[in-house]
Amino acid sequence: MKSALGFLIAARRCEIHGLEQLEVTSELVKGVSELVHMLQRERGTSNIYLASGGKRFAGQRAERVAASLAVESAVREQFSGLDTDSGRMAGGVRLFSRIAHVLHGLDSLPALRERIAANDITSDEAMRCYTELVAGLLAVVFEAADTAANPVISRALVALFNFMQGKELAGQERAVGAAGFAAGRFDAAGQQRLAHLIDAQERCFQIFTEFADATLRTIWRNAQNSEAVAALERMRRIACAASPAAFDGDAGERWYECATARIDVMRQVEDCATNALLHVCETQLTEARADLQDHKRFLDSLSALGGQAAAPVAIFLDKPARSDDVGAAGDNEGLLSAGGLGPHLGRSVLDLMQAQSQRLQTMSDELNTARAALNERKLVERAKGLLMSRLGLNEAEAYKMLQQTAMNQHRRLADVAEATLSLADFLKRG
Amino acid sequence: MKSALGFLIAARRCEIHGLEQLEVTSELVKGVSELVHMLQRERGTSNIYLASGGKRFAGQRAERVAASLAVESAVREQFSGLDTDSGRMAGGVRLFSRIAHVLHGLDSLPALRERIAANDITSDEAMRCYTELVAGLLAVVFEAADTAANPVISRALVALFNFMQGKELAGQERAVGAAGFAAGRFDAAGQQRLAHLIDAQERCFQIFTEFADATLRTIWRNAQNSEAVAALERMRRIACAASPAAFDGDAGERWYECATARIDVMRQVEDCATNALLHVCETQLTEARADLQDHKRFLDSLSALGGQAAAPVAIFLDKPARSDDVGAAGDNEGLLSAGGLGPHLGRSVLDLMQAQSQRLQTMSDELNTARAALNERKLVERAKGLLMSRLGLNEAEAYKMLQQTAMNQHRRLADVAEATLSLADFLKRG
Repeated sequence: MKSALGFLIAARRCEIHGLEQLEVTSELVKGVSELVHMLQRERGTSNIYLASGGKRFAGQRAERVAASLAVESAVREQFSGLDTDSGRMAGGVRLFSRIAHVLHGLDSLPALRERIAANDITSDEAMRCYTELVAGLLAVVFEAADTAANPVISRALVALFNFMQGKELAGQERAVGAAGFAAGRFDAAGQQRLAHLIDAQERCFQIFTEFADATLRTIWRNAQNSEAVAALERMRRIACAASPAAFDGDAGERWYECATARIDVMRQVEDCATNALLHVCETQLTEARADLQDHKRFLDSLSALGGQAAAPVAIFLDKPARSDDVGAAGDNEGLLSAGGLGPHLGRSVLDLMQAQSQRLQTMSDELNTARAALNERKLVERAKGLLMSRLGLNEAEAYKMLQQTAMNQHRRLADVAEATLSLADFLKRG
Repeated sequence: MKSALGFLIAARRCEIHGLEQLEVTSELVKGVSELVHMLQRERGTSNIYLASGGKRFAGQRAERVAASLAVESAVREQFSGLDTDSGRMAGGVRLFSRIAHVLHGLDSLPALRERIAANDITSDEAMRCYTELVAGLLAVVFEAADTAANPVISRALVALFNFMQGKELAGQERAVGAAGFAAGRFDAAGQQRLAHLIDAQERCFQIFTEFADATLRTIWRNAQNSEAVAALERMRRIACAASPAAFDGDAGERWYECATARIDVMRQVEDCATNALLHVCETQLTEARADLQDHKRFLDSLSALGGQAAAPVAIFLDKPARSDDVGAAGDNEGLLSAGGLGPHLGRSVLDLMQAQSQRLQTMSDELNTARAALNERKLVERAKGLLMSRLGLNEAEAYKMLQQTAMNQHRRLADVAEATLSLADFLKRG
């Protein structure tokens, strides 16, 4: 029969196993972030290649494709290395479903690339395919963040996911801006789309800042003080102005350059964020393993003393029961101080249990905070999708509708999204 | 390298493994519910034994203790049978910590019983020890419900947990009422405590009714149409009246009898609920296994056709992208329909993926609903505990304070509880 302390140790063992899985997932996330970056660059050059009717960037595109292929094969390797057979991967149901989507997308890349090389696809359509694949890869990171049971790692993943999402929106902004500047003008729809992408980026980087650690926050703050960012801001102003100033023929290229420079800086920050994530995993594991050793030593000292077999010495303290926690199991000074052990050892086991209760409570509170940020995102995305499919809006319009309602009613965006979803049946099908 | 479909199958495998663990946990919950019932009965007879100075119920108490011991040993057996070594038990961190608390409590029962037998403990103190142990056992059921990843099973567990909690409150009500009727009067504190226990019971049974299936709801509705319940309601009214009518010397025994009859009926309903839970686990497992076989057959048919090796035939449909789901991975009709397979098979894999996406979304929505009920309880318990420790209130007063605030401000109890917790630092320490 296992003792109370034995179960405390078993709980720690579960925690360590969870951390080991998170370490694997975090390595995967690092790979995914690299692949996303490669696909974003391939998308950028493909866009220019298609827009120029195949005249420009043919060489660069081939280079980008080769770079994507190399990283893709590494990521596929990582996918295949996951524990898919035992059915025991935490959060495996959702994570593996996301990976299935990504693989399905990757499988179709060769055909897409052929069509691009042959100029047999519109630039818009090609962009959409890349963007969907990137969205699928981001969804893998999202699931990793959503299933992480360690609050420190969960925060690091929430920060990273939002950063990656922000960077992806910056990539989309680059494409929309490049098209507008190349065409010599921005129509209302283009302006709205640009405004949406800028706004959504800001929101992502804001959440990143909330959840990133101090070092990362500083790196990000410093990264934004660049000439490229200032130049981009000037061009954003021109693009979004009510009556846009005329711009010269080089505007498209200048926009592309400074948007690219900004994205390259983002990639450096992202790199720091993935490394920070791996570092956090390592530290948490080391701590948890040291704790487990402590627990085990304590158990050994108990059995050396014959503690488990000692005659029960009950010490029902007279402290009133409290119920800080569900079931009040956390603070049972009365009953639990007995535990069939001598007063001194019984006391130590009790201390250990109370510390564990307290720890679990704190962890659960912190996890809830991190997951709330993810949940907000989930709600807004779903509400946006609902408005798009039911009211026939595009993404920018749907987002604006939610945002405007939130502003008018002084409510949080997530609340408006939730209300929208709960009224799904009232919205006519498009 | 694993294919997209291979990962879909891996996702299903994780689901099945989770269901198998839930089956084990549900068996455990059944055992725990029996042990709780036994301890409740032992508590009841011990109470009368102590209140009568050891004159009454000595024999019954011995019987109850023997019955508790038998079930306790079966439950300990179940605990020991859990997978504690691999660290791979889902939700093991919290579940095992709860079990550690329970074992610590069970270890101290012999000492408690000796003190009761020797009349060396007050009735209040003894009751508190039993009640804490029962609370610890209920916390095990709570964790099982909170970690269940299958919405149907989660609903059944939420229903069961709330029923067990309601039954435990009914047991506490029996003790408080018996003491008042035996003493010949109810003071204001006793009346308040009684009102709180009745109110909290109602809330539990209301949530039970929300989450139980139709059969269980009917069983419960019918169970309440008993003479014992009507008699109890009359005595409740007498006990809670502003100027209580005088009651005769037998009132205490009559109260005890009808409260016990009601609890016995509850035990029958609880039995139905635990059996329903096990049945649900079985059905869900059978379904999931059949699905997995379907998936596998599909995979076999693919490899028989050489589908995985076929030349990629991309069919980028022209349907606009939607983003009903985070990352828009769910509805990627464009890119994902390619997948390196022929149009027909690519289409089927895509259908499978979309069905899986849809399923996961529905499951996640339903799980959120069930967990919201648990979360509400968690918040209210913690806010209550905070008010008790910081303002020096008892449980009934703390609950009333929350309830009154919610009523005055037309807010949900859970919202008031959340606000209370967020203002923890403003409440002076008691």
